[in-house]
Amino acid sequence: MAKVEKLVCVICGREYQQEDTEYTCLSCGREGILDIRYDYEAVKKTVTRDRLRSKSDYSIWRYGDLLPLSRFDLRFYLQVGWTPIYQVERLGRYYGLKSILIKDDGRNPTASFKDRASAVGAVRALEKGSRTIACASTGNAASSLAGLSASVGLESFIFVPQKAPQAKIAQLLIFGATVILVNGTYDQAYDLSMDACEEWGWYSGNAATNPYLIEGKKTVGLEICEQLDWEPPDVAIFSVGDGCTIAGAWKGFKEFYELGLTRKLPRMVGVQAEGASPVYRSFVTGEKLETIIPDTIADSIAVGKPRNYIKALNSIRESRGTMVTVSDEEIINSIKVLGEKAGVFGEPAGVAGLAAIPKLLEEGFMDRGEVICHVVTGNGLKDIQSAMKAKGTLISVEPHIEDVREKLHQRTSQEGD
Amino acid sequence: MAKVEKLVCVICGREYQQEDTEYTCLSCGREGILDIRYDYEAVKKTVTRDRLRSKSDYSIWRYGDLLPLSRFDLRFYLQVGWTPIYQVERLGRYYGLKSILIKDDGRNPTASFKDRASAVGAVRALEKGSRTIACASTGNAASSLAGLSASVGLESFIFVPQKAPQAKIAQLLIFGATVILVNGTYDQAYDLSMDACEEWGWYSGNAATNPYLIEGKKTVGLEICEQLDWEPPDVAIFSVGDGCTIAGAWKGFKEFYELGLTRKLPRMVGVQAEGASPVYRSFVTGEKLETIIPDTIADSIAVGKPRNYIKALNSIRESRGTMVTVSDEEIINSIKVLGEKAGVFGEPAGVAGLAAIPKLLEEGFMDRGEVICHVVTGNGLKDIQSAMKAKGTLISVEPHIEDVREKLHQRTSQEGD
Repeated sequence: MAKVEKLVCVICGREYQQEDTEYTCLSCGREGILDIRYDYEAVKKTVTRDRLRSKSDYSIWRYGDLLPLSRFDLRFYLQVGWTPIYQVERLGRYYGLKSILIKDDGRNPTASFKDRASAVGAVRALEKGSRTIACASTGNAASSLAGLSASVGLESFIFVPQKAPQAKIAQLLIFGATVILVNGTYDQAYDLSMDACEEWGWYSGNAATNPYLIEGKKTVGLEICEQLDWEPPDVAIFSVGDGCTIAGAWKGFKEFYELGLTRKLPRMVGVQAEGASPVYRSFVTGEKLETIIPDTIADSIAVGKPRNYIKALNSIRESRGTMVTVSDEEIINSIKVLGEKAGVFGEPAGVAGLAAIPKLLEEGFMDRGEVICHVVTGNGLKDIQSAMKAKGTLISVEPHIEDVREKLHQRTSQEGD
Repeated sequence: MAKVEKLVCVICGREYQQEDTEYTCLSCGREGILDIRYDYEAVKKTVTRDRLRSKSDYSIWRYGDLLPLSRFDLRFYLQVGWTPIYQVERLGRYYGLKSILIKDDGRNPTASFKDRASAVGAVRALEKGSRTIACASTGNAASSLAGLSASVGLESFIFVPQKAPQAKIAQLLIFGATVILVNGTYDQAYDLSMDACEEWGWYSGNAATNPYLIEGKKTVGLEICEQLDWEPPDVAIFSVGDGCTIAGAWKGFKEFYELGLTRKLPRMVGVQAEGASPVYRSFVTGEKLETIIPDTIADSIAVGKPRNYIKALNSIRESRGTMVTVSDEEIINSIKVLGEKAGVFGEPAGVAGLAAIPKLLEEGFMDRGEVICHVVTGNGLKDIQSAMKAKGTLISVEPHIEDVREKLHQRTSQEGD
């Protein structure tokens, strides 16, 4: 139950009170993303290491005093957040790193990081008296919003472009969402969802432009600090699509730092796919972001018009971080590396950051002794097609031990060549 | 570090010490499943409510004093177990039940209940000095064993029948398993895997016949008791394929009861698909189990030759439980009901038990005021194809608000008819 002091537009800096506007800046329109600021002096009194240690709620709600919600009685039962963080020695050895930490956010209720945002969005919708929530998405954000809405009895309307894959639509239907198939692009579906929210008073669960949802995302930064016993990593790597995941995580790291709970901040690394790298280009050139047509297998970060790039770039610059691009081939290889070395199955966007590690070492951005943290943002089961592109060892045999013996012998001989 | 007192054959009752045999009864062969018994007087001293309450390890390893392992330093980092249990009011209202509890075991590392078994199997393999583990399966058991083996650096060989679906093979390859594609049936693949374990000294991770793996499964029963503050449910529902999941859960409930930690036992309900119900038939007729050719969409319980049916039937009879069959149509409908009412996405076998609820009420097996617990044994993302068979609301629109208005209006009018 944090006291929200103000909401600040990331473009013009205009300040608002919560009752003034729910989503974006009234001057800058839908581009004017807002950033929520709290009365941190008040927060300091309730958010302390000791108080957190005594909490038995292992979910994002343990950070209720840093979330912009007032009706905590509306929190729901699905356990979102407090996903495990693993130090994986074999993966460290593979990359030649002293320490790599993997936080598996594919362990959330609908199997992606997005549940953090949807959880806060769903409770906010209930607080505002909405019975209906809507968003435009084909991916994790949509299934997450539909699933968490279902759990609290909110009706959900999900706007998806017509070419969205059947499997992703199936997941939405299972959660009881009304799926609106838009004969147009993702951007048209997005605009339509916002228009519909205005027309029918539905709550907008579009994470990119709803400042409450990004507050849910910041819990990953808070959790990492607490799970690592208040010693944040040196480097935190996130894949970047729209930009609000890395921005959210950074807000979490920064708030705990400013509250005096941690004594350092990680450098943030934003990783984009080569075929969908508008934020990267803007980072490198310093020029205004140019919209592109995305082309990558990492569908969760295949964003041509990132709506939260200003927040993303701010987080990278403020933290003295950097950006890197990786190829689809490198992404597919990373799925395999993570599976083999850690026993964790990530979706393409969820492992893209791993592919950046050799480049970050080569460029001298980080050294092998630093503590690196990588968040796997989605479960690999969400995209079996991409996983199937990775190579593996498949041996066909007749149902006799003699044949197994022979085939394994052949393989060993070949490996010895 | 429980002291194993003996291993008892479920067929002939012959008793063994741990060093005598690793898998099955030496007299009864591969049919002679063993049951592990501990020195419960010793266990009583270390497994107490207070001791458990003070543990900060929220995984199956918190029950180490009731597991047949000695080298706890070999426990690995992947967080297996302690999956959330939810009281879902909306689902209760749907079924007309006062209280229904959903335990979401799809939240395990490889997204299924099988991780409980594989975790114990992998540690046991390491204890025995094995570098390699093997099993025959096309489903959750295989991906689980491959994933957990990868996390500890064990090499894995998975024997699968040639007709296994590509997607399931992909998951195995991602975890670095060597996949042996057997030109034959599942039963041939199983026998071949056992032969290969004997020939090369690999550890057998076949859950059906390895008594250590079932000990991992029992942790679900232990957890339910502890998570419900030592008040077990009146009825616990499990889907039944091979039979060792329900048998494992029952062993957990029973051990806590016999240790004096709980004061009652749930009645166990075993649910099979109509097209794969050999255990059900044996339960109803009282006759010896007859092997069948399974035909159901619930692949995780599509077992024609259940190897653990004796243990399964024992658990149902001992607990004064019952068995029910459900149709594929009822299973698909349950996927939708669970998704819509609870926000949980289960695979067909993972929701089959829900489909049994109306029948159990109708038959008078349980009444509406009892506490029912259903374990969702696998994540729905494992089988998108089946989920797509469920009906949902899909509306196609042109990218204009006018069209959305019209289509929604049409739908409302139709609903009013």
